[in-house]
Amino acid sequence: MSDISTIGEFGLIKRLTSDMKLKNTSTRLGVGDDAAVLAFGGKQTLVTTDMLLEGIHFNLEYVPLKHLGYKAAVVNISDICAMNATPTQMLVSLGISKRFSVENIEELYSGIRLACEHYGVDIVGGDTCSSLTGLTISITCLGEAKDSDIVYRNGAKENDLICVTGNLGSAYLGLQLLEREREVLRANPEGTPEFEGKEYLLQRQLKPEARLDIIEQLKKAGIRPTAMMDISDGLSSELMHICKNSGVGCAIYEDKIPIDYQAAVLAEEMNLNIVTCALNGGEDYELLFTCSLSDYEKLIPIEDVYLIGHITKPELGMNLIGRNGEQIGLKAQGWQAFE
Amino acid sequence: MSDISTIGEFGLIKRLTSDMKLKNTSTRLGVGDDAAVLAFGGKQTLVTTDMLLEGIHFNLEYVPLKHLGYKAAVVNISDICAMNATPTQMLVSLGISKRFSVENIEELYSGIRLACEHYGVDIVGGDTCSSLTGLTISITCLGEAKDSDIVYRNGAKENDLICVTGNLGSAYLGLQLLEREREVLRANPEGTPEFEGKEYLLQRQLKPEARLDIIEQLKKAGIRPTAMMDISDGLSSELMHICKNSGVGCAIYEDKIPIDYQAAVLAEEMNLNIVTCALNGGEDYELLFTCSLSDYEKLIPIEDVYLIGHITKPELGMNLIGRNGEQIGLKAQGWQAFE
Repeated sequence: MSDISTIGEFGLIKRLTSDMKLKNTSTRLGVGDDAAVLAFGGKQTLVTTDMLLEGIHFNLEYVPLKHLGYKAAVVNISDICAMNATPTQMLVSLGISKRFSVENIEELYSGIRLACEHYGVDIVGGDTCSSLTGLTISITCLGEAKDSDIVYRNGAKENDLICVTGNLGSAYLGLQLLEREREVLRANPEGTPEFEGKEYLLQRQLKPEARLDIIEQLKKAGIRPTAMMDISDGLSSELMHICKNSGVGCAIYEDKIPIDYQAAVLAEEMNLNIVTCALNGGEDYELLFTCSLSDYEKLIPIEDVYLIGHITKPELGMNLIGRNGEQIGLKAQGWQAFE
Repeated sequence: MSDISTIGEFGLIKRLTSDMKLKNTSTRLGVGDDAAVLAFGGKQTLVTTDMLLEGIHFNLEYVPLKHLGYKAAVVNISDICAMNATPTQMLVSLGISKRFSVENIEELYSGIRLACEHYGVDIVGGDTCSSLTGLTISITCLGEAKDSDIVYRNGAKENDLICVTGNLGSAYLGLQLLEREREVLRANPEGTPEFEGKEYLLQRQLKPEARLDIIEQLKKAGIRPTAMMDISDGLSSELMHICKNSGVGCAIYEDKIPIDYQAAVLAEEMNLNIVTCALNGGEDYELLFTCSLSDYEKLIPIEDVYLIGHITKPELGMNLIGRNGEQIGLKAQGWQAFE
């Protein structure tokens, strides 16, 4: 394993970014000058950023570096998708402690590059520096969209349909599983973690995907959502953002929230309420969106989109309708950045 | 002092970003959705990012938080200027340990906002999260320019003039001064640091400025540099980048390198070679640029621009011509990110 000081910052950047092919015509200049140069023509430019810190957002005891890189990229790509836009460019900044070798950082970066390949994103810059403690990843993602295509949080209207993609709670349960097995391994280092039949949950936690596919299908079907977010902090929390920003209320149905079979089994096993996991778990990176009732027919054929409720008058508040018709006030209890 | 957990992430973001007025017509949407929306019309978009880590890039023992914020913003703004572009938008991500109160972070952010005010930059997004250890600042800055105005590192031609702005080595000497006085204070906590007559050096280290003024003056004078960088790692290092990328050599004259009087005095006092400080010190954030010999007449009236040498054939290498005409090979010994 090579010590990073042997190749220096420029050597490291060269190793990490060599052979990168630029995929977007809007990328005029990538890595290698003071700034990247982008040409978006008549389109709008979208930009988002996310920071991941070791010990806060990830634990290298059970997250492989390549997966971590993939996820760090996807989290940002997902934010661009959530604006109904196409991700195009990325800047990657890394703060690296002495614990990490050149090969470690290459592994991390290979995950970032894999995600960028998959979603057609160009890496156009960044910063690398040493850190006293742990690994810090800060990623900025740019995207493009026609002005009229961009979807904000504030456009939900009364009677709009509320939809989510995929299923919810799986990423959270994947994390619970990883933490449980880590404890088991700590108690008995000779043991083997029990992941059989639960691989999907691990995948959802370790290698989430951004729903660019849904964005493309909605466009093809001629649907422009009225409001949209990606579900990073939990369905309740994101719904609250949309309702607050749009000045509306909502009603969602407990039995309509899509839950994966493996998630339901593990929740039962761990004595967790699966609906609570789905509402507050976070990290699923699925899309939550609202659209006009008139889009209903166009919406139905789209695979992996689930109708979970509708937008109401603001004075009705945010409600979950239980399996027996009971109405429960929704609270955002999503992931807290500061505890 | 308020614990950040009492107001949470959204509360903190609200406190930090309230009352921000958007200054650029290209800023369509700032903080408050998954991504910011920018409209650059026919212009090119520039984007750069920098990460600052406590204990590596700054020491809060002698750097006030407001200055740190100002500098963190300026470092990025300077990168946009170095492309001959106008800085327009910024994203600010902060990793914050429990040691910091809401008021601390507001102070840091007030410095960032002051710099953005000063340079006409809109803060359009970011991320805040808790960190296990120390403070992490990651800033991304966007800018705009006409395609034909953008200046890269690779355009220097034989016989071009080599120019720098301001003076060099002062920021490095300001750091030496701060470190010296910290040691004195540690040995004698009753003492007072001796900064009299050296205030300018402190200012250069603690509150550097980006040379947007020079960019504007060059434009007004009708000069488009052939290559340009900002001097963050030291003149030698940046010159090496320009020569390498442009496939040329250079000759600069020791007695032409602009040095501030206070810097020269302190270097003498501390037994440091002032030319070495100027060549390798870094953090001055002045501009280094090359331009055509035919721009000479237009260049002379511009204040604070100094002609220090000229571009040569590549086979002549990079040389410093000493006061007695002796020729010394230049090496890049700038700041090392990994040691």
